[in-house]
Amino acid sequence: MAKPLNIGMIGYGFMGRAHSNAYRQVNQFFDLEYRPVLKACSARNPEKLKAFADNWGYESTETDWRKLIERKDIDLIDIGTPNNTHLEIVLAAAAAGKMVLCEKPLAMTVAEGEQMVAAVEKAKVPNMVWYNYRRVPAITLAKQLVDEGRIGRPFHYRATYLQDWTIGADVPQGGAALWRLDAAAAGSGVTGDLLAHSIDTAEWLNGPIKRVSAATETFVKERVHQETGKKQPVGIDDACMFLAMFANGSMGTFESTRYARGRKNYNTFELNGEAGSVFFDLEDPQYLQYFRYSDPGTGKKIESHLTGWQKVHVTNSEHPYMKQYWVPGCTIGYEHTFVNALADFLKGLETGQPAQPDFRSGLRTQKVCDAVLDSAKSGQWVEIG
Amino acid sequence: MAKPLNIGMIGYGFMGRAHSNAYRQVNQFFDLEYRPVLKACSARNPEKLKAFADNWGYESTETDWRKLIERKDIDLIDIGTPNNTHLEIVLAAAAAGKMVLCEKPLAMTVAEGEQMVAAVEKAKVPNMVWYNYRRVPAITLAKQLVDEGRIGRPFHYRATYLQDWTIGADVPQGGAALWRLDAAAAGSGVTGDLLAHSIDTAEWLNGPIKRVSAATETFVKERVHQETGKKQPVGIDDACMFLAMFANGSMGTFESTRYARGRKNYNTFELNGEAGSVFFDLEDPQYLQYFRYSDPGTGKKIESHLTGWQKVHVTNSEHPYMKQYWVPGCTIGYEHTFVNALADFLKGLETGQPAQPDFRSGLRTQKVCDAVLDSAKSGQWVEIG
Amino acid sequence: MAKPLNIGMIGYGFMGRAHSNAYRQVNQFFDLEYRPVLKACSARNPEKLKAFADNWGYESTETDWRKLIERKDIDLIDIGTPNNTHLEIVLAAAAAGKMVLCEKPLAMTVAEGEQMVAAVEKAKVPNMVWYNYRRVPAITLAKQLVDEGRIGRPFHYRATYLQDWTIGADVPQGGAALWRLDAAAAGSGVTGDLLAHSIDTAEWLNGPIKRVSAATETFVKERVHQETGKKQPVGIDDACMFLAMFANGSMGTFESTRYARGRKNYNTFELNGEAGSVFFDLEDPQYLQYFRYSDPGTGKKIESHLTGWQKVHVTNSEHPYMKQYWVPGCTIGYEHTFVNALADFLKGLETGQPAQPDFRSGLRTQKVCDAVLDSAKSGQWVEIG
Amino acid sequence: MAKPLNIGMIGYGFMGRAHSNAYRQVNQFFDLEYRPVLKACSARNPEKLKAFADNWGYESTETDWRKLIERKDIDLIDIGTPNNTHLEIVLAAAAAGKMVLCEKPLAMTVAEGEQMVAAVEKAKVPNMVWYNYRRVPAITLAKQLVDEGRIGRPFHYRATYLQDWTIGADVPQGGAALWRLDAAAAGSGVTGDLLAHSIDTAEWLNGPIKRVSAATETFVKERVHQETGKKQPVGIDDACMFLAMFANGSMGTFESTRYARGRKNYNTFELNGEAGSVFFDLEDPQYLQYFRYSDPGTGKKIESHLTGWQKVHVTNSEHPYMKQYWVPGCTIGYEHTFVNALADFLKGLETGQPAQPDFRSGLRTQKVCDAVLDSAKSGQWVEIG
Repeated sequence: MAKPLNIGMIGYGFMGRAHSNAYRQVNQFFDLEYRPVLKACSARNPEKLKAFADNWGYESTETDWRKLIERKDIDLIDIGTPNNTHLEIVLAAAAAGKMVLCEKPLAMTVAEGEQMVAAVEKAKVPNMVWYNYRRVPAITLAKQLVDEGRIGRPFHYRATYLQDWTIGADVPQGGAALWRLDAAAAGSGVTGDLLAHSIDTAEWLNGPIKRVSAATETFVKERVHQETGKKQPVGIDDACMFLAMFANGSMGTFESTRYARGRKNYNTFELNGEAGSVFFDLEDPQYLQYFRYSDPGTGKKIESHLTGWQKVHVTNSEHPYMKQYWVPGCTIGYEHTFVNALADFLKGLETGQPAQPDFRSGLRTQKVCDAVLDSAKSGQWVEIG
Repeated sequence: MAKPLNIGMIGYGFMGRAHSNAYRQVNQFFDLEYRPVLKACSARNPEKLKAFADNWGYESTETDWRKLIERKDIDLIDIGTPNNTHLEIVLAAAAAGKMVLCEKPLAMTVAEGEQMVAAVEKAKVPNMVWYNYRRVPAITLAKQLVDEGRIGRPFHYRATYLQDWTIGADVPQGGAALWRLDAAAAGSGVTGDLLAHSIDTAEWLNGPIKRVSAATETFVKERVHQETGKKQPVGIDDACMFLAMFANGSMGTFESTRYARGRKNYNTFELNGEAGSVFFDLEDPQYLQYFRYSDPGTGKKIESHLTGWQKVHVTNSEHPYMKQYWVPGCTIGYEHTFVNALADFLKGLETGQPAQPDFRSGLRTQKVCDAVLDSAKSGQWVEIG
Repeated sequence: MAKPLNIGMIGYGFMGRAHSNAYRQVNQFFDLEYRPVLKACSARNPEKLKAFADNWGYESTETDWRKLIERKDIDLIDIGTPNNTHLEIVLAAAAAGKMVLCEKPLAMTVAEGEQMVAAVEKAKVPNMVWYNYRRVPAITLAKQLVDEGRIGRPFHYRATYLQDWTIGADVPQGGAALWRLDAAAAGSGVTGDLLAHSIDTAEWLNGPIKRVSAATETFVKERVHQETGKKQPVGIDDACMFLAMFANGSMGTFESTRYARGRKNYNTFELNGEAGSVFFDLEDPQYLQYFRYSDPGTGKKIESHLTGWQKVHVTNSEHPYMKQYWVPGCTIGYEHTFVNALADFLKGLETGQPAQPDFRSGLRTQKVCDAVLDSAKSGQWVEIG
Repeated sequence: MAKPLNIGMIGYGFMGRAHSNAYRQVNQFFDLEYRPVLKACSARNPEKLKAFADNWGYESTETDWRKLIERKDIDLIDIGTPNNTHLEIVLAAAAAGKMVLCEKPLAMTVAEGEQMVAAVEKAKVPNMVWYNYRRVPAITLAKQLVDEGRIGRPFHYRATYLQDWTIGADVPQGGAALWRLDAAAAGSGVTGDLLAHSIDTAEWLNGPIKRVSAATETFVKERVHQETGKKQPVGIDDACMFLAMFANGSMGTFESTRYARGRKNYNTFELNGEAGSVFFDLEDPQYLQYFRYSDPGTGKKIESHLTGWQKVHVTNSEHPYMKQYWVPGCTIGYEHTFVNALADFLKGLETGQPAQPDFRSGLRTQKVCDAVLDSAKSGQWVEIG
């Protein structure tokens, strides 16, 4: 009964692992028509590719991703390679009529992103960008509270995405493992890597950003290249901060860095509205903090002596995604955000209601990222069309 | 208009300071008929007494507390001396018709406590035991929530009072500063010092305890006496833990120690009921944590996706005592619990509704303490009459 | 190269799911000689069994577990059925020379447990009890800190395991899903279900408990039986609390309940020693809280102005198990405790160093549980041999 | 022996109370040569002034502050009136040779501030601005950690000061109690009121800010004036956010608002450096959070499995100011920040080392505030000279 969906995975790095795990796990926890089959994976290094395929159970391998795309037995191309390869692969996959899932950020630039959107829309192939954090149950719950009217008129949004793993001047750049530090492969530094997540979440919860003022910094100016062993100038932004005005009139602050000692995966946001507020921190992903001031519909205020920030342990059966897993009080982990995202994508195939964010939505995030980088360069506020 | 109330303070140690500060501060923050006047203080060491009197603004001193009690110009005797002196002073003060405020625990034993209650009741003098923690606004709020029906049928009560300041085997016992480690002066160790607070709070919030099973331990068996310089056996309980059954059918666990590394003033309680729960920790005194499950009256349940422990920052104007101080969000400190207690006592003089806990109520706590120590000695459950 | 290990799973309930997931996932994350194969599963209801087998990828099914044990192609029997079935299955499996993994608690009573230990030791078959929480990385880290001498002389251990899912008097007892509320199937209530975990962890970290004083309570006296639809007396303990003295001279308090409103999976422990303390809470499983007072070896004290409870986010590569998963800052979930336990078991097969807790160790926990229930019944302190 | 210091207090609002309390309390807790005497207070409304004087124990009153300044028996003028009165009073007080303590912000503009600095420096009178939060013990401790080299090379500073008390459109503006909402009296909104605190703390801890990009917003455009009863445009900034570059090369984000639902006094900062990080939140003023990565001098790294954010309960005797109060574990409150500030000022009189921030330092904060408001108006980055 289950419809097999043959997956062709490109890339075997960190995201290759995370996506492969999702394909293996989704049907055990979600009731779905489609059943992904790990048909083939592709990467250049044949030995590592073999080990990867064996580990995750891929039936076959291709060292040339073009061959993978040409194969008739592949339904869906999943892209887990560095950012500078997304465009070419997407165009080829769409041309071949394959569904496409692409790791974020979608593109190196808005111009690239526009080509990619055009390609998948012309080919009418299902597509999604892996902004997996939308599927942290607590973040999905935040969206639900917004939609229920529990935040009310929004005033403020503040987001940080802080890490600390590149502080050491002896961390090299480039190569397979560290391409995120190499501007040629990554396009940008924390802006595309971390802020892109923050922006995707922010616009999902609080609508479009219309103008930004930004600054970036590169704290370590030169690093050894992992492959050449030579010192080279660092081209990426180590840190980026920006002010934002949202279309709905609320104000936003955003910051991301890999130089915040002690913050490992501190992806936080807070949204303050007239009726309530929410706060989230990815280091404590099982919680959504909620301040309930008044209720939608009635507008009834909570008695003042009872108000306080509530730590909602997002593991009840009534919480997003959680009924699929264990019992109340039992947490899920990082990897399940990919499982949840995939479940939504597969459900979208069933229902004909495409899962979000699709490429068009991913392009939107790209526009904000580009505006941020433009503003940091020009020192001016930049409008987003 | 203000009626002066002449205070005679006995003892200039830590509690002498805390009480004196309360007398100086209460009228600036509370609107009261009575205005304490720091008339005289008493202690044996004349130099230290002089310094104490000067510091706090006492008008005069007495090195013999009996003289203080005899003075016509004293309305109220406040006892801040070691536990083994309470009985004698109370009896004399009551006989002289003075109001009496006594530092906790009221007595060394139930037998002593009964004499003290008899004395003040016979003399009909206003009296109170300084169980100041009832006046932490968050604890008073907990009592309010219980009274509002927000906890409902109670199932569990758990309390700890953990400190770590006597772990070092080189801490001496006895003397003016360390009489709490000397069984002769203190009667017991953590049971009278820390657990007495926990028990007073517990019975206030959850009603009488009817039976207990306890164990005590003395981890450091010998300590140098501060005055003699000689090693002596330690007579106090360093730690005490007990199980309790409350008259209302709920179960309790209690524990206190001065050997919990890292806990400085970790006086906590949690009460779990059918309709809700509360949690408090004296190291974070500005918070009451509240889990709201259903509301009194209607019994209406909070929507499951919105439930979570709420950190109520107990600094709103609607919170107990807080309107008297600053503005919402501004905390008060340890010393204000004494100011609040005193304000309640003075208000009780005005209204004729005596503030609690009076000596009779303090005797009740003594009964539980004695039962706990009896149980620890006998290894049996002990009923409390 | 990988050695297949053919699994025969008995039971398809909650634990059947959790264990099956572990078999499917362990080799993707751990480098191991053995590779579990989901050969067969067994349960009485053929339709549900079929659905379960399909979902998790079992190759075959048996509606009679005896047939499963007889099969030559099965290497390991895993028991996920109610407690009252463990004995018979273990005896049969051991007699058939199968490895045995048994869900906790091992047995209904010490007498049963002794038979089981005798059987597996006589048959010399590898065996383990699924006390999965030892493999929460933060708990394993606590054990590491103990072993490194960072706690020093222990004074106090306190554990709670609090839930709130049976407060409603309309929750039925018995049947496939709710056998834990049925004394005939479960043996005891929270004592075997929750306290057994607390005891296993406590003795692992702090050594044997030598005496206990306990009390239990059944708050809801009658419940409808899920299968018969009739009201029946409730035979289990709804809540249990006990005092403990450890062999090392430290004191312990333990409490568990399913009536602590707002606590969903609040499995906590705190260990206070002379050199440091640790605190853990299963609702925040990514953290171990650590108070560092002095360092082992040198005994050097941390400067007083720098001391404080540290929230260690147990997701560094240097933390137990975490290198196998994602990157620092990325959490794992409840299910991974089973994956980790299985990895340890399989590694034990490789190295010949059996993973713990084996049945003998599980029997030890059973002895404490029985002593606790005896004490609750007799009202006396009970020694543990 | 104690030298009396005759205080002339101008203003009886919230700050009048906070300062008066400090004068009454400082000598009971700090050992100081000078002893403030509450000589006189001044305000326009004679009845309210009388009540205020009675409450706090002022010996006399003046309804004209010029008379107060003229009095020979006044040594020190303390200014607790709205911002638009500071200039005139300071000039008069300095001309009269009085010491001057001024509530923050010092001035309406840099131009005003420069006149005030010139006046007190010409008159050589001791002076201080009441940036009381420097004297929260946890913030003073943060400064100590910076000075000890525990932060190392700084990368990031982020500060918020969030409140929620003006969200309601029915809150009036102006008048005695609400002059902070009236641009004519306050000069600015949250910038001068809240951000000024954040900036003072930031520059104290992390050195001068050299450029800023800011945005402000007024969410409620019209409010009824408290005195006239008429609706008037709102002239203040309800919220302000800005990006900052520090002279030391680190990046900063700042935000303040009175529209962050659920945040009552959420004055936070975080400083991330190569060697460590600190975080503070005024709603939890008893804590400084500290991430210790490596130690100064040796540069030795903490073992990776032991690292975590530490909640330092800043109540040890070794912590700033705390030895003067109670015992470890006992908190102090909001009001004590004024007591501590005053103690520092009085100690400065003794030692001849003036307490900070003096007017010159307060002018520096004014410059940043003005730059922030300029940037918000122009939409450009603004340099600070």
